Amino acid sequence: MTEFATARRSRITPEREAELYEAVLELLREVGYDALTMDAVAARTRSSKATLYRQWGGKAELVAKAVRHGKPGGSVGEVDTGTLRGDLHALTLRSDDCEMEQSSALMRGLAMAVHGNPDLLKAFKEHLVEPEMAEFGRVLQRAVDRGEVRADCPALQFVPHMMIGAFAARTMLDEQPPTQAFLLSYIDAVVLPALGAPTP
Amino acid sequence: MTEFATARRSRITPEREAELYEAVLELLREVGYDALTMDAVAARTRSSKATLYRQWGGKAELVAKAVRHGKPGGSVGEVDTGTLRGDLHALTLRSDDCEMEQSSALMRGLAMAVHGNPDLLKAFKEHLVEPEMAEFGRVLQRAVDRGEVRADCPALQFVPHMMIGAFAARTMLDEQPPTQAFLLSYIDAVVLPALGAPTP
Repeated sequence: MTEFATARRSRITPEREAELYEAVLELLREVGYDALTMDAVAARTRSSKATLYRQWGGKAELVAKAVRHGKPGGSVGEVDTGTLRGDLHALTLRSDDCEMEQSSALMRGLAMAVHGNPDLLKAFKEHLVEPEMAEFGRVLQRAVDRGEVRADCPALQFVPHMMIGAFAARTMLDEQPPTQAFLLSYIDAVVLPALGAPTP
Repeated sequence: MTEFATARRSRITPEREAELYEAVLELLREVGYDALTMDAVAARTRSSKATLYRQWGGKAELVAKAVRHGKPGGSVGEVDTGTLRGDLHALTLRSDDCEMEQSSALMRGLAMAVHGNPDLLKAFKEHLVEPEMAEFGRVLQRAVDRGEVRADCPALQFVPHMMIGAFAARTMLDEQPPTQAFLLSYIDAVVLPALGAPTP
């Protein structure tokens, strides 16, 4: 067998690659990073472990790639309703309850692993955290520009902690995944008053 | 060997038990629940795996017991400074930065495991979450009684989510553990304004 033939044989189609990454994310949500094995990925995707190792090198690389693949970094159409409350509600309503449960499970599955795995932390931040944060940043900037929030409001810097924190704490405290209804009432009860912005 | 002799030999002293639980909590913070092995516990505590299994039955039971042991459920003296801000700051200052880093690491190490392990979830809630929440509840009730916070303030029900959420989100968003300074400024910028309570 020539080198060329080997290289060709190891190539997989983009559809197959996407399928594989989705299976990895599924397993991460179910069992978490530590308990995820290459055997389980191979079984679920009906591929050989040899292929997985040849293509990705190892579990850390495969998981980081899957995280990078999982969610589009860009925004699905800019949100701009004319009020901060409208914008925060619209951002929340873009993920349905099922997607929120999945994100929350993925966050849990990766929480421990991102410490001590710099490449995974980078993928996690760049693809799951920062796009959301950038969007909140734009929405808040417009609220400041419109005069809904004072530019020197000390709560501005904590909006990511308020939002992502509530998302993470929901499962821990109430044993249920975050839902649209939970986040909408949290926005009205906590985020807007903390920012001194108009509430309903 | 008689049954009696076997029973006697399996008994360990309370000091030794405490030492063992502390080692388990240490390992949980370092590697998390999934990666924690009975081998590692045995090695770190210089005990035999046979002893560990005989005494605790298995990893799930040992970890739940260690969590139950780790932190006193009761309060270390009631906090009552006369203002909500004073009380929230005093509660925060009771843990130094090192203890906060440890709690945050433990939370991370258990986040995935408490799902799908009801006994561990129960230990986690009863010994790490609920005592803190009960204390916040008492502090908030006094603030309502004093007229600092309106009894129907919608943010009241979300104080645990605000506080524990910020604690959890800090590491995820800023790649540094929560500190006293971070939590004090978060209380002033977010928690008190959301509650409509007096700020500095």
